Amino acid sequence: MTATLKNDRFLKALLREPVDRTPVWMMRQAGRYLPEYRATRAQAGDFLSLCKNAELACEVTLQPLERYELDAAILFSDILTIPDAMGLGLYFETGEGPRFRKTIRSQADVEAIPPFSATDDLSYVMNAVSTIRNALNGRVPLIGFSGSPWTLATYMVEGGSSKDFRTIKGLMYAEPETLHALLERLADAVTDYLNAQIEAGAQAVQIFDTWGGVLSPACYQAFSLTYMQKIVSGLKREHEGRRVPVILFTKNGGQWLERMAEAGSDALGLDWTTDIAAARQRVGDRVALQGNLDPAIMCTSESVVRREATVILEAFGKAPGHVFNLGHGITPDAKPELAKVLVDTVHEVSARIRNS
Amino acid sequence: MTATLKNDRFLKALLREPVDRTPVWMMRQAGRYLPEYRATRAQAGDFLSLCKNAELACEVTLQPLERYELDAAILFSDILTIPDAMGLGLYFETGEGPRFRKTIRSQADVEAIPPFSATDDLSYVMNAVSTIRNALNGRVPLIGFSGSPWTLATYMVEGGSSKDFRTIKGLMYAEPETLHALLERLADAVTDYLNAQIEAGAQAVQIFDTWGGVLSPACYQAFSLTYMQKIVSGLKREHEGRRVPVILFTKNGGQWLERMAEAGSDALGLDWTTDIAAARQRVGDRVALQGNLDPAIMCTSESVVRREATVILEAFGKAPGHVFNLGHGITPDAKPELAKVLVDTVHEVSARIRNS
Repeated sequence: MTATLKNDRFLKALLREPVDRTPVWMMRQAGRYLPEYRATRAQAGDFLSLCKNAELACEVTLQPLERYELDAAILFSDILTIPDAMGLGLYFETGEGPRFRKTIRSQADVEAIPPFSATDDLSYVMNAVSTIRNALNGRVPLIGFSGSPWTLATYMVEGGSSKDFRTIKGLMYAEPETLHALLERLADAVTDYLNAQIEAGAQAVQIFDTWGGVLSPACYQAFSLTYMQKIVSGLKREHEGRRVPVILFTKNGGQWLERMAEAGSDALGLDWTTDIAAARQRVGDRVALQGNLDPAIMCTSESVVRREATVILEAFGKAPGHVFNLGHGITPDAKPELAKVLVDTVHEVSARIRNS
Repeated sequence: MTATLKNDRFLKALLREPVDRTPVWMMRQAGRYLPEYRATRAQAGDFLSLCKNAELACEVTLQPLERYELDAAILFSDILTIPDAMGLGLYFETGEGPRFRKTIRSQADVEAIPPFSATDDLSYVMNAVSTIRNALNGRVPLIGFSGSPWTLATYMVEGGSSKDFRTIKGLMYAEPETLHALLERLADAVTDYLNAQIEAGAQAVQIFDTWGGVLSPACYQAFSLTYMQKIVSGLKREHEGRRVPVILFTKNGGQWLERMAEAGSDALGLDWTTDIAAARQRVGDRVALQGNLDPAIMCTSESVVRREATVILEAFGKAPGHVFNLGHGITPDAKPELAKVLVDTVHEVSARIRNS
């Protein structure tokens, strides 16, 4: 059942082992910028139904790999599956982003969260992981993922997306013990969830801390990084005779890279506001780096994509430990033909740099 | 006409001269969290009419000073006065933020921008400055301000607020010379505008670069900081026999403080994602620092405000060169009574620290 991995550049780069060329994937690579994704999504009915249907989730996961020579696939799912499984009632309002029918705003709310088991309560995710892993047949590694406890908590407390996070920050400053109780529950759940994905076939995992960057340094440490560190230390890091690398990504976390590098992950994701050469100097050889092209560039032109991707590759240089990616998810208005330009440029230019 | 300044703590701190206690003001201190502001605004009709009426603008500027022992007043105005004066047609849609009827998206659009003279085209702002300055009667210094060229350009190109800045980033990457032409025009206009405010009575000025933090480091340097530096070097820095300090504030600019400190300003504004003690170490004695309490704290409680303000004051310590402020504007849902707690705490605690 476990086909030999034909392309392990991505896993090697995350472990800072030498590779012939820099591996590349794109956050949200299975997404609305692709017409075939929009067709499958229309067939599924809505976004959540697509996530819950293993065959269709597998189909959209593989779509970008048919077009581009990507070095990794990433599970098609949502970051809010855990709070949904905890009974909060996830739904999507057109143009409004995710919403929850119930919110968590008190100690009693936290205590009322039912017990969570990833294999029982999110079996549809594990089905998707094993279905995709089988379909990949060793072509490239499969990445599993979860939202970070802080990021999940923002949606659970606010009841959806937020501009200023006033409700969760109110809770954080006024009743920190309530928020810590919630984050403890989430850290345990995320650990269980990622371990279940690894058991089901995920060969690397990424923790998305989309909203850690809205915190002060002290609050980031206490309410986000601490819980990610706890998760990392509880993950199954060896599976199928191979190390399972872990990537931490805090959007707008560029000021805290040194601290993030101490949290035990194999790699850090960078958004585009950080210079990757400076980041490499700051974290030294403790972690690999993933990133960090501004996704806005995927709406421009071939020559701009080539130029800007080359700038990043040259800034990183030939040291081991670089996975090329965007600094955040590819947007719905990105031009699909530029994704091909990006992937091909990364391979060509990095082969030249790495063999020079 | 120019009354003696009775409280110059704010100006001294910006020049890193010793003060008995840390001066404090709050970005957007004349704003919707104050019921008396909402009443005056209702009387004016709408936000722009309030900005354009010197008597009413003066009235709202002074309102927070009646409630709190603030060490500075800031001109009540909008950051988008310059593009409005350039004929773009600023208006506000309820819940939507600022909008422009016309946008700037090509070289021809830039060339069609009419000549701009601050004293002629924004005489209502200069009237407000001199009216407020007279009304202050030397009580505290008056701060003038402008948006940064990059920040103004984002609204002019996008036509309003933006989530991802895709249009201006498209222009920046594909036609940088067009954007540079626009930024040149804006840098000249902002220099003229701030100098006119200084002539009219502003005793310090702040450049608000609200959106510089959405850029990559290289683009921040080329498209935002360069133009702010140009403005700073063109400002009248002595007036009425006193130095006129300049503050640069880039929201989410915490990664670039060293570079910002080289741009020639007297002080840098910090948002709450940067540790102020670490910032002080990074910039040394080149500039004063202003900040940096998370505005979300102004919606919590007395004890939280006291605790968190004290943390910042103690982190900065007794060195000269600290102006206390929020890390961004005070929000409409802030509790007015907590602003008093904040101002009084800053004065009490800093007096203890500075005299220890």
